[in-house]
Parts: sequence; C-alpha cells; structure tokens
Amino acid sequence: MSHISESTVRRLSHYYRVLEEVGAEGKRMISSNRLAEREGVTSAQVRKDLSYFGSFGRSGLGYNVAHLRAEIRAILGLERRWNVAVVGAGHIGSALLAYRGFGEQGFDVVAVFDRDPARIGKRLGGLTVEDVSRLPDVAAQGTFEIGVIATPAAAAQDVADALARSGIRGILNFAPRKLFVPRHVTVRNVDMTLEFETLSFALAPNHRGRRRRVRG
Amino acid sequence: MSHISESTVRRLSHYYRVLEEVGAEGKRMISSNRLAEREGVTSAQVRKDLSYFGSFGRSGLGYNVAHLRAEIRAILGLERRWNVAVVGAGHIGSALLAYRGFGEQGFDVVAVFDRDPARIGKRLGGLTVEDVSRLPDVAAQGTFEIGVIATPAAAAQDVADALARSGIRGILNFAPRKLFVPRHVTVRNVDMTLEFETLSFALAPNHRGRRRRVRG
Repeated sequence: MSHISESTVRRLSHYYRVLEEVGAEGKRMISSNRLAEREGVTSAQVRKDLSYFGSFGRSGLGYNVAHLRAEIRAILGLERRWNVAVVGAGHIGSALLAYRGFGEQGFDVVAVFDRDPARIGKRLGGLTVEDVSRLPDVAAQGTFEIGVIATPAAAAQDVADALARSGIRGILNFAPRKLFVPRHVTVRNVDMTLEFETLSFALAPNHRGRRRRVRG
Repeated sequence: MSHISESTVRRLSHYYRVLEEVGAEGKRMISSNRLAEREGVTSAQVRKDLSYFGSFGRSGLGYNVAHLRAEIRAILGLERRWNVAVVGAGHIGSALLAYRGFGEQGFDVVAVFDRDPARIGKRLGGLTVEDVSRLPDVAAQGTFEIGVIATPAAAAQDVADALARSGIRGILNFAPRKLFVPRHVTVRNVDMTLEFETLSFALAPNHRGRRRRVRG
C-alpha cells in the first residue's frame, strides 16, 4: 500500500463507478481511452494505475468490464461489508444516519454515540444513541471497523484518540479540523463547510479589490 | 484570485474555524505558531498565507483574533448569505435538506429540483420539489448562486451544463463523477462513497497480497 498513492486509489474508485455504469449499459469491453475521458486523465495514466495490480487489459481490445470491475472491487476492499460507528448525533450525524446510500455500497452504520444526555437513549436511524463513554468498550468488541466523527471541531481530536486507542484504523472525519492520529490509522476528511466556503470565496468579488489595495 | 491557490483558501477556511474557537474562549490574540499547530503546517506557512491579503500580524504579538477573523470572513465571502439550490431529491439531497448546519454558516437552501415525477411536488425540508426542467428559468431569475448536484452520476454532467448555461458559477458536486465545466465556473467535489472506499482500501488486507503476487 505504501507504493500506491492516495490519488491512485481515488482514481480506482472512480474507474469502479464508470465500470458499474458501462456494465449496467450491457457493454462487455472498455478502452483505457474511454475510462480516461470520463475522469479527465490521460489513457497512459489509466494504464499506469491499473498496472499496479497486474495487467488486466489486452492490447487493442481494452479491458473486460466485468473482470476489471471485480478486480477493482477486491482491491478496494468492497468484497465484504464494513461496519461503521457514527460519533456525534447532531446535524451531520443525523443526516448521515438518515442517508441510505452507504448501505447500498457495503457500509453499515451499526452504532451511534453522543455525549449529550439529552440525546443519549434517543432513537436515530433505527439505532439507539449510546453514551460516548461506552465507545472504547464497543470498539474493543470488534463491533465496527470504521469510525465517523461528526462532532463539533473542539471534541473531534478526543474522539479520534479514543478510536485509535480502541484499535480502530479507519476514520472518516466530518468535523472541520485537522486530526492527528498514529501512523497505522487512516483518516479521510469530508468538510462540507470548507467546500461551501471555497465556493463563496470564488464567487465573492471583494477579494480581488482587497488584493489590489494590499498591493497598491 | 488566480494567484491564490486552492490549498491556501482551504487553510484560510481552517484558520477561520480556529479563530472562531479561540474567540469563543475569550482570547484576544493568537500567534502564527498556534494557528500553525492546529493545522499541522509551519508557522511560516501561516504567515505566508495571511500575507497574500496584507499584513495583519504584529511581530512578537501575534494576530488580533477578532480583526483577523473579520478579515478572513470578508476574504471568504462570508459577510453575506448565499442562496443554494439542490438538484436531486434522493438519498443525498434529502440528507442535505435535513442538515441544518448550512444555514448557521450563511448558506440557505432555497430550491430543490428532481426529474422523477414521483418526487416533484413533494415537500422536503420546508421546500417543494420542483421539476428539474424549471431549473434554467429559476436560475436565470437570480434565485440562487450555488448549485448542489446530488443526482446519480449519469445525470450529473447534464445538470452541470444546465447550471453553467444559466449563469451559475459555483457548483458543489456530490455525484461520484468528474464534471467538466467552463473556466469561469468553480466546482467542488464531495464524494463520500469515495472517502469510504479509500478507507476500505486502507483496511483491506488483500491488496498487499495481490501486489506481492503481481510482483512475484
């Protein structure tokens, strides 16, 4: 894994989606050109990405859709289901529990935690909100493999520490702050506020004026 | 804007969050070291990022929290509210409409569209789902500035085209595919499935074996 870059994995995930689509359309073969076109990369990049895992393609014929899809599925660890715990039952946690797309993709939310007594014991998305103090015990039982952090920023590092100490090696972080974790733990960040702010920055007219003023 | 990199904007957004936190704690000043520490960057990087917008800090004293926060707020275009339309009223669209955090951060969802007759006319998050064929008209009226794409992958490019043709310059894309847009349009991608798959890749034991097999 140390030789496979994050961006390669991201592209594999995208290729997988394209293969699902063209498979559903009944296509048997796909060229590296077509895979490349959809992702805005070169076909050389596609061939390089896929070469990490051995040679699946046949020159001039392209890739067998079903075969390549199965290979990428295995590579991405999607041959099995993964159990997920959501920590934080506020706006984001509630939205995640209401979101039914994860299950379709092999990720099952099996537990939800919060530290607010007003939320503990409430039903949410078919689960009962548990006291976050129980997190280490539940994690240590091997109940879930992936922890989703949906707490306010101030609480996120403590939760990440607790998850890491409990042996959890995969964290999806929705809290708008950087998390520090041991090397064997993988953190992915989804910061929707940050994405919205990047858009408002791009749309706002004022920063150009500000920059001119600063430079003038 | 062309000289301010995306990663700088992302860090500014993070600094803004840190400043909100330390402001709430009642702190008046903050050092570049402390800002840097929280984001895992060097203090030189913090000073460089902030220098794009003029010199706010005073040597040895650090930055005035309230002042720097107001400056970054203006730079990020957060002094005003932004109207958002969600296209796609499925799992992700519904979760987004249920999520109440955006409003707190200055982003108001004012319209929701779908192409499925079974969804059109339904109430969702206080809004009525409109036929996506109305999207160009509604967008042309200046009703919203940011379009959120929460459709299946196969429909996403058509929606992006419609948004761009209607003069929308900011798109947040939740559909798991790359979008092609004119240069004046900014697209940000949030692909939760991809993040989960990156985690399952990291957790799956099999790819190491596969790579060894390939190399052996």
